[in-house]
Amino acid sequence: MFPAFAVNELDTGAACEKKVVSLINKTQRTIDAALYAINRKPIINALIAASQRGVRIRLLMDRTQLGASKNLRELYQLLEAGVDLRVSKGKGLMHTKMAIFDRKTISGGSFNWTNPAVTANDEICNFFVNDLEYAAKHQKFFNRLWKKHPAQFSEKWFQNNGRCGDILLLRT
Amino acid sequence: MFPAFAVNELDTGAACEKKVVSLINKTQRTIDAALYAINRKPIINALIAASQRGVRIRLLMDRTQLGASKNLRELYQLLEAGVDLRVSKGKGLMHTKMAIFDRKTISGGSFNWTNPAVTANDEICNFFVNDLEYAAKHQKFFNRLWKKHPAQFSEKWFQNNGRCGDILLLRT
Repeated sequence: MFPAFAVNELDTGAACEKKVVSLINKTQRTIDAALYAINRKPIINALIAASQRGVRIRLLMDRTQLGASKNLRELYQLLEAGVDLRVSKGKGLMHTKMAIFDRKTISGGSFNWTNPAVTANDEICNFFVNDLEYAAKHQKFFNRLWKKHPAQFSEKWFQNNGRCGDILLLRT
Repeated sequence: MFPAFAVNELDTGAACEKKVVSLINKTQRTIDAALYAINRKPIINALIAASQRGVRIRLLMDRTQLGASKNLRELYQLLEAGVDLRVSKGKGLMHTKMAIFDRKTISGGSFNWTNPAVTANDEICNFFVNDLEYAAKHQKFFNRLWKKHPAQFSEKWFQNNGRCGDILLLRT
């Protein structure tokens, strides 16, 4: 359970990963994440476990980052676990690093969910714990992003992108 | 003046720029910023004006991003205006997009202070207005970064980096 009061928290480096994993593990119903990049295994594994225990996960990823990924195995695993995955449409980057847990707690900041973010970079992550009002603002923004980057585009991209073509098989 | 109560605010896209410029313009004493990238003129101009009216500005930039910059004119202008500019040391990216205004209001999120962040990308910016406790945590983190990336290293980098060599002249 999250604490019963609204808290702003700040972490850096490896502590960001620990907190994100902890939040994923505590989530009971929904995770909505709009992320520029993801390849960090402990976080991916926590998402897979959450999805497998019934958490509804919507994950919007930047298309260019996903297309440049050298290891798509984790994404297959996310799809197999039932995560609703989309890629961004359009020329601009989908650059946010934001997730909403159970519509009441938010993670954000500079922290991409990647290896260098955990092991090498100077990063900051902000957590807004149990802040219903602020979470609602984030949820509204996420819903706008989710609509802006529609499922149909993602389907086509998965189908047409040589390196990711067979991801579609896992979605059907 | 900032409002007299602590507020969490969220903005996206071009609104992030407006809010950052507004915060810079309202600042009376200090701005401490640790930024991955900067090239957005309205923001740079606001920093220059703030420095010229006596605001003490410490600006830590990622070395690789600064080294790759195609237009260093703005940086000359910042240095000429008296901004205390450092580049990051070490292999990891200095990836934060964080600024602290008058030690009490913070900007953060995914928003780099750049053209594509304003005009093309999906971005989120978080503002913590007049939150003294949270600002103190950010200030502590910034001070740690400022110490980690020392002036001596920046001086040498400016001196040895071919494309930026004469920036040093402006610092002396």
